[in-house]
This record gives sequence, C-alpha cells and structure tokens, in this order.
Amino acid sequence: MERDNIQRMAGYSWGEQPDVDQVIKLNTNENPYPPSPNLDRVLANYSSSSLRVYPSPLANDLRDQLSELHNLSRDNFLITNGGDELLRLIFTTFLNPGELFGMAEPSYSLYPVLAAINNSPVVRVPLEEDWSLPRNFSQILNDKGVKLACLVCPHAPSGSLVNVDILSRIASEFRGVILIDEAYIDFVDPALRHDCAPLVNAFDNLLILRSLSKGYSLAGLRVGYAIGSQALITPMLTKTRDSYNINALSQLLAKAALTDQEYAQTSWEKVRLSRRKLKNSLAQRGFRAPPSQANFLLAEIPEGFPYTAGELLQALRKHNILVRHFDTPRLEDKLRISIGTDEQNESLLAALDKLM
Amino acid sequence: MERDNIQRMAGYSWGEQPDVDQVIKLNTNENPYPPSPNLDRVLANYSSSSLRVYPSPLANDLRDQLSELHNLSRDNFLITNGGDELLRLIFTTFLNPGELFGMAEPSYSLYPVLAAINNSPVVRVPLEEDWSLPRNFSQILNDKGVKLACLVCPHAPSGSLVNVDILSRIASEFRGVILIDEAYIDFVDPALRHDCAPLVNAFDNLLILRSLSKGYSLAGLRVGYAIGSQALITPMLTKTRDSYNINALSQLLAKAALTDQEYAQTSWEKVRLSRRKLKNSLAQRGFRAPPSQANFLLAEIPEGFPYTAGELLQALRKHNILVRHFDTPRLEDKLRISIGTDEQNESLLAALDKLM
Repeated sequence: MERDNIQRMAGYSWGEQPDVDQVIKLNTNENPYPPSPNLDRVLANYSSSSLRVYPSPLANDLRDQLSELHNLSRDNFLITNGGDELLRLIFTTFLNPGELFGMAEPSYSLYPVLAAINNSPVVRVPLEEDWSLPRNFSQILNDKGVKLACLVCPHAPSGSLVNVDILSRIASEFRGVILIDEAYIDFVDPALRHDCAPLVNAFDNLLILRSLSKGYSLAGLRVGYAIGSQALITPMLTKTRDSYNINALSQLLAKAALTDQEYAQTSWEKVRLSRRKLKNSLAQRGFRAPPSQANFLLAEIPEGFPYTAGELLQALRKHNILVRHFDTPRLEDKLRISIGTDEQNESLLAALDKLM
Repeated sequence: MERDNIQRMAGYSWGEQPDVDQVIKLNTNENPYPPSPNLDRVLANYSSSSLRVYPSPLANDLRDQLSELHNLSRDNFLITNGGDELLRLIFTTFLNPGELFGMAEPSYSLYPVLAAINNSPVVRVPLEEDWSLPRNFSQILNDKGVKLACLVCPHAPSGSLVNVDILSRIASEFRGVILIDEAYIDFVDPALRHDCAPLVNAFDNLLILRSLSKGYSLAGLRVGYAIGSQALITPMLTKTRDSYNINALSQLLAKAALTDQEYAQTSWEKVRLSRRKLKNSLAQRGFRAPPSQANFLLAEIPEGFPYTAGELLQALRKHNILVRHFDTPRLEDKLRISIGTDEQNESLLAALDKLM
C-alpha cells in the first residue's frame, strides 16, 4: 500500500546497538565518557507526575539557553528529536518532491535515504583525494539545479574539516538552502577557533545542525538543534515539526547537560588527546588515517594485511570490539573507528597486534 | 525559502500549556491522575550514564510487551514519538503529494495540517447531527478517490463512539489506507467490549493509533504506537521513521507504565465516574453534551446564557480554569472540557454558577 518511491527505496542501515556491557563499542561514534553528573541530580529530583501534562511545545527554556551559549537570539534556534529530525525537516520544509538534493560523496549515509523518502534525486559531488571539497562545489550544485544540500563538517567518515571561510563562500554562492551538519563539531581543536554560528546572521540560506549525542554524551536522549536565520527556523518551528517533538524530561536533561560546559569540554579534550595517540599507534602498525577533527578515525587497511576491512571487522568482533565498515566506493578498504577511552583504544591495538 | 505549499499553509494551533500548578487545566485532555508509581521506581534506579549510547532503534522490548497486551505479534507494532509521529508517518509512507486525504468533519484539527504539509487536498465528510458517521462514509471517500483517511474514535471533540462492526465495514469497503485514531480509547465503558485490535488481522489497510498520553497519564513523555498488518507497519518501521525515534529512558518508562495495567485501569474508571457526574451537573445548568466515551465533554452553551463560548472561556480563565474552544462550524457555540478530578470539576461548576 506504500507510495511507489517508498517501495523502491532501501531504509537507513543503522550501526549495531548491542548491550554495551558486553563489548567495546567503537562503531557508532558515541562519546566514551558519561554525561555530566548534573543529569543524575535532575533525575533524582524528578517526579514522574510531571509527565502527566504536555511538555513545552517550543522548548523555549532550551532555546534561550542556546541563544546565550551561541550569542544569538531565541528565534535562531529549533530543538529537535536528535539531529535526525532536523535532517528530515529540511526536506519536508524546503525541498519539493522531485527537486534535487546535493551532497558530497562519500558522506553521512542517511542523507540519500531522506532524499529517497522525499522522492528527490541526489546529486553527488565527489570529494578530492584528500577528502577536501572541490573548489567548484557550489557551482556544480547550482549548475545541476540543486535546491537543498547537506555538508557534514567535520566530515564523516573521514574526520576532515572545511574551514569557515570556505563554508561562508559556499553559503554565499549556493542558490538553495544549505545545512552544515556539525554533529561532530565539539571535537574540533579549539586552537582553530572554528565557529560557524555567526554565519547565520550573514546568510539567510544557511542552517547548522548541532547534536547533544556526541559532545554531551547523550546519544540515548535524542536531542539536537538547528541554528539558522529566523526565515529558515520559523516554518519548521511553527508548521512542519510535530508540535510536541521533545518530551518534558528530555528538555530538562538537555538543559542540565548544556549548563555544564566545563564538564563537556573536559571530555572533548580527553577525546582529542586519545585521538592523537590512537592515530599514531595505528600508523605505527601501518594503518593510516586522514587528519581527523571528529571523534573517529578512518583507518585504511595496510597493503599486505591478511584481512580485508570486512574480515577485520569480523575478527575484531570475536575480540568483542565493534567498529564500522561501509562497503561503498573509497570506503571498502577502510574501517571507521570511534575514539574510545585510552583503555578501550589499547584493547583495540592489542587485538590488532594479535591478528597481524 | 520554504516550499510553496508550506508557505501557504497555517501550522497546528496547540492548546495552551501553562504551569500546571497555577491553573485547573481542562483544556488539552490530560488524565488528571499521575502515572503509575512504577515510573518513579524506574527513575530512582536509572543512571544517566545509560544515555551515553544510542537507544534500541526498534524498541523491541516495548513491541514484545504490546504484542502480549493485544494478543498479536511483534510485527504488528510500531512505537512512535507520541501519536503525532504516527499521523505524520502515514502521510509520508502511504499518500503521494497531491493525492486526496479523507476525514470526518469536524475532527482532530491536526489532520488537515498534516495533509497541507503533504500538499494533499482534504475531503471532509460532515458528521450527522448526532455526531455519528454517515452510512455512506466509505463510499463517499471511494467516489472522490481518497487514498488515506483518519477516523478519531472515540470522536474528538464530541466523545461519540463508532462501534466495531461499522469500523470493520468501513475498512472492508474503503479502497485506501484507514487509520483509526484511538487516542481516547481507554476511557470507553468496558461493558461495551469495544476492541478494534483484532481487525488488523482481517484488514491489510487498517492501522490503529494508540497513545500513552491520556490513558497512561504520560502526555509529557511522547509515546504512542501503531497496531497494523505487517504490510503497513514494515515500511514505516524500516524506511520512513527516524531510526532512533524513541529515547532510551522513554522506552523504559513506557514499559513501566504499560506493565501496571491495574493502576491505569483504575484511573480510567475514576475518569468515567467523574464524566458521568460532570455531564449530569452540566446538564442541570443547561449545558448539554453528547454522550462521551472519551475523557472530555463537548458542552453546548445554553440559549440565553450571558456569554458566548469564547467569552465563557475567557471568564473561566479569570477563575484559573482552562477549557478549549474551536471557533469553527458546529463548534463555535461549544466548549470542550477535559474530565478533571471530582474536585477540579466542582471548581468548574462553582465558577459557572458564579457566572450564571
């Protein structure tokens, strides 16, 4: 009974989500550290009787908190049920069925799934050899007639970062709506002073996706948010979003996590230090990975290694270590490895040493 | 930058959601009793560190629990972020943009909003004078070429119930997908033995919406579910739904609420008793309401009453009592009043007496 385009398409393949006590889970980019202790305090003081009534439909407390954090106005923010909801909403709100969607290739594998749901063909612009964007990225999109595009930055699955000047130029040149997916932004080296949020004041066609899943260790909570011009935020906020998209307790927990910036920043710094160590240790074993500003490394299987990437994933699984493999062009010979604690990363290295 | 159809449409108008300590809130059909004490036990034992990792994408524990509750199979269930998500998903999954959506008029005011988002014209079939469905309801839908329809049963905002035989006939005759929105089903008199769930084994085109918002006192949690044939459930489960639509803690809390059937059923019985009392007390004051199987009454302003419905709503607000008014045909002279506790209902009656 489903629509033809729904019948034809394949759904999103999510990473395996087993019981976390049984495995070292380096497959879906969770933060290895727990969320701020603030959250347990919120839970301890919460009475379930508060769940009897509807939650705040707009989550304005959270929006106000974010406007202070980013030095923007409440009208620049929309809270979403994970970043996924925002990605879905930009299709529903800004791209007519049949109109073209644009993305870099490879990229987050959910994008083409959402395009298929919207019955929109996908224009894929190949990344350069070093995972950077081609200089004429926005020109290609404009020439093809693309009306909506997503750029994940830091890039998944390579971890490479496009700098703010280039993103600014793309927003200025591209004639559609562009979303910069910053799911991994919190792990960028702070010395780079990378901050796209002020761009939303300059570009009416620019949306930024943020997520609490990785930076705030809350993948299980499903809270993300959009930063954008009021012209882009308002139709999603008042028309296309489900009215009560964020439950009452999630609003409180998200607020508690965002309040504890110091705790979150400490976890980001730990991940960055572990990232550098793991990258070096992998390189010593012949596994090269591009420079990553995210909480994962895209490690290439060295020549002469006795396993293919898919086989290595299976071999690591026998050591109770989960990593991710994408059997697609340019990725089939690589594994995406989330940065764990130093202890977890050393278990991974020890397992690799046994297999080599 | 938004789509033309999004620009043209108006968003859903949700009921006012003020701080519940300040008012008697009879405007958005919440259950007046708190959820099962099981939930506070779940919260007391929950560590926020569990939120670090992604939730179960399919919520299979909940689906298994529901399959026992309804004596069906796991494949007949989909868990959604409130009933709203299911309503949105049926458009995305089963109705091509431009194809016709059908509903009874009046009905839940969200339906035409979702149709507008989908750029689908709405066929509105007027209810009879007594709020019952016209006998040729499915024939009208078929003749117009409607491909997707929703029927809220018990009906909102009248509270009237369509019996299972009639619903079964409609499912059999209608040539599209039909959703029966059972958001208020838990308040139906159990003596009626009204149960549509078995119909999903007979009709491949039938979906049933259930919600924990009212029956389980969890409007703030945002958990609902679909019951339907596997043919209808699967594309929503594996393709059109956001992969992690229900957060980890919500899955546990919903499970705890559903486990405590005895507690929930006691609250339903209390609401039914209060409904009968309030209906009689309103009638004594000249406010007639149709027989309601839901947790609200649609009270008509008596002739000669000094206030219109809209004015009465404002006057009650001055007494810190919130009710709902729809300024639309057949409803403009009525107020929808949620069933509160007996104490709350008596405050409402006392306020009315002062105003009369």
